[in-house]
Order: sequence, then C-alpha cells, then structure tokens
Amino acid sequence: MGAHSHPYAPSGLELPGFVPLQLSQGQIVAPYLGTSLLVVLAVWLLSGRCRRLSKMDRLLMCWWAFTGLTHILIEGPFVFRPDFFKRENPDYFDEVWKEYSKGDSRYVARDTATVAVEGITAVLEGPASLLAIYAIGSRKSYSHVLQFAVCLGQLYGCLVYFITAYLDGFNFWASPFYYWAYFIGANSSWVVIPTLIATRSWRKICAAFRGEKVKTK
Amino acid sequence: MGAHSHPYAPSGLELPGFVPLQLSQGQIVAPYLGTSLLVVLAVWLLSGRCRRLSKMDRLLMCWWAFTGLTHILIEGPFVFRPDFFKRENPDYFDEVWKEYSKGDSRYVARDTATVAVEGITAVLEGPASLLAIYAIGSRKSYSHVLQFAVCLGQLYGCLVYFITAYLDGFNFWASPFYYWAYFIGANSSWVVIPTLIATRSWRKICAAFRGEKVKTK
Repeated sequence: MGAHSHPYAPSGLELPGFVPLQLSQGQIVAPYLGTSLLVVLAVWLLSGRCRRLSKMDRLLMCWWAFTGLTHILIEGPFVFRPDFFKRENPDYFDEVWKEYSKGDSRYVARDTATVAVEGITAVLEGPASLLAIYAIGSRKSYSHVLQFAVCLGQLYGCLVYFITAYLDGFNFWASPFYYWAYFIGANSSWVVIPTLIATRSWRKICAAFRGEKVKTK
Repeated sequence: MGAHSHPYAPSGLELPGFVPLQLSQGQIVAPYLGTSLLVVLAVWLLSGRCRRLSKMDRLLMCWWAFTGLTHILIEGPFVFRPDFFKRENPDYFDEVWKEYSKGDSRYVARDTATVAVEGITAVLEGPASLLAIYAIGSRKSYSHVLQFAVCLGQLYGCLVYFITAYLDGFNFWASPFYYWAYFIGANSSWVVIPTLIATRSWRKICAAFRGEKVKTK
C-alpha cells in the first residue's frame, strides 16, 4: 500500500492506497474502440445474412451489442470492485476507471449516486440491451417497448448522473480537456442515441395502436 | 435562527437553524390523505359521466391524478426550497418534509441523490402523470407508452433511492416505526402500483404489435 499522490480533482480528495495508472490514455482507449469496432462489424455482417432485416434493424442491433457489452463488461467491473484504484496488479478494467476518473473523480471516490446508477446500468440495462438484439432479429412483439424501456433507463441514469454532479459542486475533472473528453464527450452518446431510439419506438408504438401496419422492427 | 436539537438520525447530523415541527403527525397526514381521497373521488365521479370509459380506465385516472398531484404539489416544494427546515414561519409543505425526514433524514440533510430523484419526479413525472389522465380519457394512441414511461421513471427513482440509502449506511430513520411507516410504507405504493401498470401497458403494447384489437385504454 503506497502513499502515491493521485491525478484527480479536487486535490483534497483522499485515496489511501491509490496505485498510479500503468497504462497510457492510448493504451486504454484504443483497445476499447478497437474491440467495439470489431463487435459492431461482426453484428453488421452476421445480421446481413438475414434478408428480412432492414439496414435500420441492423444498425440498431450493432448499437445494442456495443452498449450492452459496454454496460456489462466495462461498467460491471467498476460496480463490483470497490477497491479497483488500489489493486497492486491492476488489470485493464481497473485502469479504465482510473483513467475515466480524471473526467469524474466521483468514480474513484465511490460516490454512492454514481455507483447506484452504474449498478442499475450494468445489472439491468446491460442484459436488456443484449435481449434487444434478439428481439429485433426475431421480430418479437416486445421489441419496441423493450428498446424504449432500456433507452429511458439510460436517459434517467444520465439525468441523475449530471444533476448530482451539479448539486455536488461540479468540480470533479482534472482539467477542461477531461471535462469535455470524458464527462461530456464519453457520455453524450448515451444521451443522443437513446433519445433518438426512444422517440422512434414511441412513434412505432403509437402507430401500432392506431391500427397501422407496423413491422416489429 | 435557534440552536434547536432535531429529532433525526443519525444524531450527529448538523442542522444549523433547524426550526422544530409545529404540527403533529396527525395534522400532517390527515390533510394529505383527506385531500387525496377527495381528488380520487372527484376523478372517479367525473370520469363516470363518460360512458366509453371502463372501470379500469377510471381507476387508472384516479391513480394518475393522485400521483401527479403528489409529485407536483408535495415533492415540488421540497426540491425548490432547500431551506424548508429552517423557515421561521413554516407552511404545511415544510412541515410535511420535516415529518417525513424522521423516516429518511437525507431529505432534511439535502442529500444530492435524493434531491436529484425528487427533482426528476416533480418536474418530469408530475406533469406527465396529469397528461396520462387526459390520454386515457381521450383514448390517445400514446396512452400506454406514456403510462409505461412514467411508471419506469418512478421505478428507476425508487431503485436509486433505496440503493443509495443502502450504500450510504442505511441509518437514516429515527426509529423502527418511522422506517416501516415512512421509508418502506410510504414508498411501497410507488413500487407496487407502477410495477402493475407497467406490466399491463407492456402487454397491451405487445398485443397491439401482434395486430390484436386493443383499445387504447
């Protein structure tokens, strides 16, 4: 257990046993983006074998695979490893959250609202996102209401995340770069895309009730 | 500004300027239950004039009126009056939250997760609940997806509320009575009823996609 100083804000934050980052930003971000691209490519190619799926279906399946795996594999470890920042032999997932904490130190400080939102995201929304891939692929009647539900969960989580950051002092980033790149940038996809999908699903559901012929995609 | 001691747990909680409760439990609970009963009765009777509404429609309209007005008129003042516990001439709404805080002192302590959840509930779910009354009454095609959305918001809020209470130490009630009556009892309606309505709306939406004849109620 070393007495290393940490790179987070506010500087008064106490993190006994903190183990400094061993990977660079590039070594953390590149594998995540690379693996995500591979997942998206695989889902796109595999779903292309099914003729009855439209391009929009296939795009949505790619998104649900990306977001579902992010929720389970990236956010899951954060939730269930409270000691991630002081592990002597940190693995990739510990390093991800030590890096991201430069944009929001509430992660490394285990702020309870952040842990609660991440817990709901990893445990409920992660598996539900993967179920959405199956629901779209097999044209289940619950496809739209499921997608709508997961989007609403993601949006509610973002609201709690941003509102509590504001109420708690809005001073959790190490520099403006990390504020824009991590706190705003990394989260913006989970505001914009769920808003678009929720709006689309809302419209499809309304059309179904008006008795219009709606495909369950 | 007096230096009054407060009745909340944990006893170490500092509340400078706290003004003691002036109303009894009965004087706080009875007007809330009485007014709620009047609202429910009024909605039940008024909706009965419309022949095409089923009893279930009318029951749902009563619930949405009750929950919508609670969100706006009871939870709203808590969100936008951070000084409610130290106001020298407290009104009924200040007293409600000073009383409820005996079951969860995070209210009087302005815990940010609690304020964030209450803010979303008062500002978004309150008006949306009242819109649901109109949607049911006029058989709008968005009736079920709107009700589903509000229920999901209420359930997500309850999840954040209970998970953060657990993570923060689970010691916010003045006695077991207040734990069961306020923290568990008062919140249980917003777990049970949204679960039932969300399940019902989910089924109606699926039936609509299967092309079944579903009334938009």
